[in-house]
Amino acid sequence: MSRFFSDRYARLTPYTPGEQPQDMQYIKLNTNESPFPPPAAVCSAVEEAAKSLQLYPDPDCKKLTAALAEQYQVDPKEILLTNGSDEVLNFAFMAFCSRACPAAFPDITYGFYPVFAALNQIPYTEIPLKDDFTIDPADYFGLRKTIFIANPNAPTGIALGLEQIEQILSANPGNVVVIDEAYVDFGAESCIPLIHKYDNLLVTQTFSKSRSMAGARLGFGIGHPALIEDLNTIKYSTNPYNINRTTMAAGIASLAAQAETDANCRTIAQNRQYAAEALKELGFTLTDAKSNFLFAAHPAIGGKTLYQKLKDRGILIRHFELPRIRDYNRITIGTLPQMQHLIRVIRDLLEETHENI
Amino acid sequence: MSRFFSDRYARLTPYTPGEQPQDMQYIKLNTNESPFPPPAAVCSAVEEAAKSLQLYPDPDCKKLTAALAEQYQVDPKEILLTNGSDEVLNFAFMAFCSRACPAAFPDITYGFYPVFAALNQIPYTEIPLKDDFTIDPADYFGLRKTIFIANPNAPTGIALGLEQIEQILSANPGNVVVIDEAYVDFGAESCIPLIHKYDNLLVTQTFSKSRSMAGARLGFGIGHPALIEDLNTIKYSTNPYNINRTTMAAGIASLAAQAETDANCRTIAQNRQYAAEALKELGFTLTDAKSNFLFAAHPAIGGKTLYQKLKDRGILIRHFELPRIRDYNRITIGTLPQMQHLIRVIRDLLEETHENI
Repeated sequence: MSRFFSDRYARLTPYTPGEQPQDMQYIKLNTNESPFPPPAAVCSAVEEAAKSLQLYPDPDCKKLTAALAEQYQVDPKEILLTNGSDEVLNFAFMAFCSRACPAAFPDITYGFYPVFAALNQIPYTEIPLKDDFTIDPADYFGLRKTIFIANPNAPTGIALGLEQIEQILSANPGNVVVIDEAYVDFGAESCIPLIHKYDNLLVTQTFSKSRSMAGARLGFGIGHPALIEDLNTIKYSTNPYNINRTTMAAGIASLAAQAETDANCRTIAQNRQYAAEALKELGFTLTDAKSNFLFAAHPAIGGKTLYQKLKDRGILIRHFELPRIRDYNRITIGTLPQMQHLIRVIRDLLEETHENI
Repeated sequence: MSRFFSDRYARLTPYTPGEQPQDMQYIKLNTNESPFPPPAAVCSAVEEAAKSLQLYPDPDCKKLTAALAEQYQVDPKEILLTNGSDEVLNFAFMAFCSRACPAAFPDITYGFYPVFAALNQIPYTEIPLKDDFTIDPADYFGLRKTIFIANPNAPTGIALGLEQIEQILSANPGNVVVIDEAYVDFGAESCIPLIHKYDNLLVTQTFSKSRSMAGARLGFGIGHPALIEDLNTIKYSTNPYNINRTTMAAGIASLAAQAETDANCRTIAQNRQYAAEALKELGFTLTDAKSNFLFAAHPAIGGKTLYQKLKDRGILIRHFELPRIRDYNRITIGTLPQMQHLIRVIRDLLEETHENI
């Protein structure tokens, strides 16, 4: 730390991204990326956009916003495009939270929420998930706080239904409820249609997972035009050109290739089912994950040990050394051959473990 | 504004980017973009990067940082890559300013500085340029504030020499001095070598102008490792993946094509000289601009009128309706044919104006 660093940030603990080791080629099942490259049309669009890289992008993202509005049947005024969904989440912490209006989110959820809160000097409450890792909507009624819920939740993968989300929205009419749908395309139901019923609902999504564009940094928020106007005030005071030309072009091409995205999501869901059943047969406990990852624990092998043994064998999964979930690991769903390989390696590991007992 | 918007941001006046009208094809001399496309190698690198867009970029930007370190003869630990230089500037306001340590910058300079200050609730002082629009270094001695100076300054284009910058650095040992070198490659001298002498110096630059990459959003800060560490704390609490895969690849390819950048900068400097001389002959007053733009006023035609008449004729320049500079316009340097066309159109305009008197 320098002697010039502001007290405001001196005690900040930054977010730790998933590891990206460069020492060897791993089977990467640790950062919830898609195992599929983006559609060919996305690559062509990026190639074309590179030719006019000397020009600023359109700060209003008009074409991409129009395409998204069409896709989700909302008005362009109800959309904000951002540099990954992390940016719209940070903007939401800035715009809709304060010392007078703290944040609330589950104790086990996306690890960036407490970082965004701390970054913006916003007090927050972590609401414990139930013992089975589900969210009890009643825990969020009448909180008088800005609520952040990942749906499906991470790293559990468990999803709330629309009815439960509506209960939370109705029970907090004076506060914004942010539903973070980063993983919704893999099997949960989006609450975007509810924005026309609830002016306190902000839905966030990303092109990183289902659209195979983690490397492009593209996310968005959808909500009442007044909420979007507030977020735009923050955007135009922070980074008006937050979406670059290649990402803008990639986003437009991706929306035009919706059928390929849908097919990839179906494949991921099938591979998830295969992996979940195989892991259960091997004795794992799993949550009912609707995401592109599983959340799994085994009675005979600790979470950290399994993570390390798989890493030694060239497979990366994500371990969180946190009190309630240290027996678990988050395993991204890859291709079927990757999942089959994973299961074989885990089976061998468990046999070794058994022999050693 | 929604009823949920935080008081902290409710009175914020966002930055206004240069207009990007879609109604017709203009000769764009209003946003200081390069008239030259990026090197072919940059386009190829982007095309290649698009194929693995499903993977997150390296949050540490190791390869690009190493290439930049080589280019500027500094250590990788002395570099932070950011989403345009706007991002490193905002991070610097966050990290090195506070209510106890306000910001100071010229009254006429990059319009985003007061927005960043307001965004972060930081008090600031605007120090008047002298009547000839130059900066008097003595005005910045012993301020006990964090100082931001664009060098060359915008929209005047006037540059300080290294000796003057050293005077400011020596006279503020207890405060960070940020030198914003967005336009340095067009004829001013970079103070990057001074970072090894002054631990309070942060230099920022961008790939937007000289490197023809405004559409890619890539900037950086160079300074003492402790300053960079502070900025990284902010980055990893805000948007760890701030540089996407295509921009990362473009940046690396751009640095490898340095000769083309240098040649483009020489051409811009020549075109600037041509345009400056031609405008002087037409009766304009100009500053001694070392940037890829000129700053010009004419006694017979108001700044806003000239801007509007050129727009009507398909040429966009930038007008700032601000007290001290409303007679002036900022004119980006384009290709020689563009500059010749501009001069012809202005000559015709002035003749019409003369006839009407």
